[in-house]
Amino acid sequence: MDHSEDHLPAGFRYSGVTCGIKASGKSDLALIVADHPVTAAGVYTLNQVVAAPVVLSRSRTPSSTLRAVVTNSGNANACTGDAGMDDAKSMCQMVADQIGCSQEDVLVMSTGVIGRPLPMDKITAGIGQAAKELSAESPAFVRAAEAIRTTDAERKTVTRTIQIGDREIRFAAMAKGAGMIAPNMATMLAVMLTDAPLSADSIKQVLAEAADRSFNRVSVDGHTSTNDTFLLLASGQGEPLAGDDLAQFQIQINEVAIALAKQLVEDGEGAAHTMAIRVTGAGNTHDAEVIAKTVAASPLVKTAITGGDPNWGRIVSAAGYAEAKINPAKTSLTICGQEIYRDGTPVPFDAKSLSEKMRAQKEVPLELTVGDGPGTADYWSSDLTCEYVRFNSEYTT
Amino acid sequence: MDHSEDHLPAGFRYSGVTCGIKASGKSDLALIVADHPVTAAGVYTLNQVVAAPVVLSRSRTPSSTLRAVVTNSGNANACTGDAGMDDAKSMCQMVADQIGCSQEDVLVMSTGVIGRPLPMDKITAGIGQAAKELSAESPAFVRAAEAIRTTDAERKTVTRTIQIGDREIRFAAMAKGAGMIAPNMATMLAVMLTDAPLSADSIKQVLAEAADRSFNRVSVDGHTSTNDTFLLLASGQGEPLAGDDLAQFQIQINEVAIALAKQLVEDGEGAAHTMAIRVTGAGNTHDAEVIAKTVAASPLVKTAITGGDPNWGRIVSAAGYAEAKINPAKTSLTICGQEIYRDGTPVPFDAKSLSEKMRAQKEVPLELTVGDGPGTADYWSSDLTCEYVRFNSEYTT
Repeated sequence: MDHSEDHLPAGFRYSGVTCGIKASGKSDLALIVADHPVTAAGVYTLNQVVAAPVVLSRSRTPSSTLRAVVTNSGNANACTGDAGMDDAKSMCQMVADQIGCSQEDVLVMSTGVIGRPLPMDKITAGIGQAAKELSAESPAFVRAAEAIRTTDAERKTVTRTIQIGDREIRFAAMAKGAGMIAPNMATMLAVMLTDAPLSADSIKQVLAEAADRSFNRVSVDGHTSTNDTFLLLASGQGEPLAGDDLAQFQIQINEVAIALAKQLVEDGEGAAHTMAIRVTGAGNTHDAEVIAKTVAASPLVKTAITGGDPNWGRIVSAAGYAEAKINPAKTSLTICGQEIYRDGTPVPFDAKSLSEKMRAQKEVPLELTVGDGPGTADYWSSDLTCEYVRFNSEYTT
Repeated sequence: MDHSEDHLPAGFRYSGVTCGIKASGKSDLALIVADHPVTAAGVYTLNQVVAAPVVLSRSRTPSSTLRAVVTNSGNANACTGDAGMDDAKSMCQMVADQIGCSQEDVLVMSTGVIGRPLPMDKITAGIGQAAKELSAESPAFVRAAEAIRTTDAERKTVTRTIQIGDREIRFAAMAKGAGMIAPNMATMLAVMLTDAPLSADSIKQVLAEAADRSFNRVSVDGHTSTNDTFLLLASGQGEPLAGDDLAQFQIQINEVAIALAKQLVEDGEGAAHTMAIRVTGAGNTHDAEVIAKTVAASPLVKTAITGGDPNWGRIVSAAGYAEAKINPAKTSLTICGQEIYRDGTPVPFDAKSLSEKMRAQKEVPLELTVGDGPGTADYWSSDLTCEYVRFNSEYTT
């Protein structure tokens, strides 16, 4: 994982504090503040059961005057009714009061237990403290990334500096999530910050494509939560990126988002291996995605990867029941660089040595060709282990 | 399970023999022969990777002149190319020669390892022996049901006698399947026999509806195989059922098919519990099915059932990401008769006693209301245990 939090984008300050929402005593409130109004976009859970902070933030993006994002962990503020919406608005108002802006220019994210009211006294104190501790330095960014964790085994951050023409652009991104976790933890929150100049129009498109290539192409257990949120804030001043520069930027931001999303899969509950599935030869991109997702979600494929089993039957038949066209006579499969199925027919191979290779690698690449069409897609998924079952069954509400 | 194989429908004979396809020495070839031409229909796997016997049988149904079904276990005759199709035809021809009919009036099913040629010498001997041992008595029916098993822990049969007007009608049905099993076992085969008189037109509709209400509403791991086949043969002579009689018959055959399909779930790999999911209040039947299937397939719901955890958050959020409309404000959930979520809000309940109830029951009923529409659906699924993971990961190709 990419944990070097240097070269943060210009124009943002961070803090992460402990306000007592989590019984564990770990940090649980993060604040990100832009020095000036910035452009911002969000993509949100498609679950029909939606938490109050998602409803509120969704109504405020895209924006070209955004100033702050406040996040609490330990309580999802979901299934909390009208009181939950009041609390979400209060959190934004408190931040606005601290930094001097309109509460409409503040976004809010929550993650943790569902169905319990937020402890607003603790959050009030936490926001006050977080506002005092804001800093543009790396340790503050790390503290913010720590404070959004729930059961994540690892902190999830990516920072990167890229060149667009003669302009240097920086990214800093943080995420949390390791599956839709017991008891009722919301899955996935992510915030990407950049000092690229983006118009309010283009930031929405840029984020949508980055999300499609990254967070929409990873799965641990296929469960979309009530709180999933992915935000992008861009602080750059002056002429917004356009044309070739914007296209270049899109390629780069997709890679940053993929790097961040892969950290979620690698940290998936009980995961021993990551599958990196590349589907080629589908009729179009959508079909390739559907096939990759179906293979990625199959418990039989997942357990084959767990066991280091180069079982083409499970993988090919999972592709075969995907709701997208494949050409069985032109279907081929390569695992860890070893072709084991070509044009609909098994290829003899040394099963023992391939199995050893699969077990030894943390990331197991599966290359599946399903025809001779132009559609390709990459997808990442975790395997399925007894630890996953234990983690999710040995809990009682 | 309903293992009383009395009152078999008139007009059928059975045999089950050991011809040596299985290394275990267990029986592996079953023959069902109709004394006279009967009407028959089939529903087959929707997987795009389809085994030769499925292609052949599919081309021969519906039929009003069917005479026999031959089934082998231990080898799926899938991914075996043109030779596989020749072998499937040979099996039908051998049966036709034995009983004196056209090979077009014989259906064939295969289940077992994928990608290996059928041992035709053994099968030839087996069909000869099976033809000699045909009998209309219960022990022969049981031997046939035994011979189609692969890794099934239990034999799966249902027999039933019903009354339609003043006519007595009998059913006898057998099935095999316990998940899409390692190494590459084909999931599900089922044959239903009845002595009702059905026209070639109506038998297709009757079977399609019975399949939709039964085998299409159960899942162990969501994997449709290359070989799934569900056949219905009707031996009744005289005026075919129609009108109210046919409607009555449909209700009864649905119940028989559900009883058979539930045996698959109860015997699911590593399954400790069955979930019986009833969705009500959806916009229409299709939506109810989609919601029930999504809840049934969620690994987080499955592991909650494994752990006896009345976790409404997982169940309601799974319904929320189903690709069908729910009304979150009118969503309610009852587990084992205990309401725990009503109109979008958690209901206080004694979690400990409900958890004990869930653990004690083999079948855990979940009643999920998702609005006030007319759509309802029943669905059955197994839970997800460490045994499932072990069974499917501790195998190497």
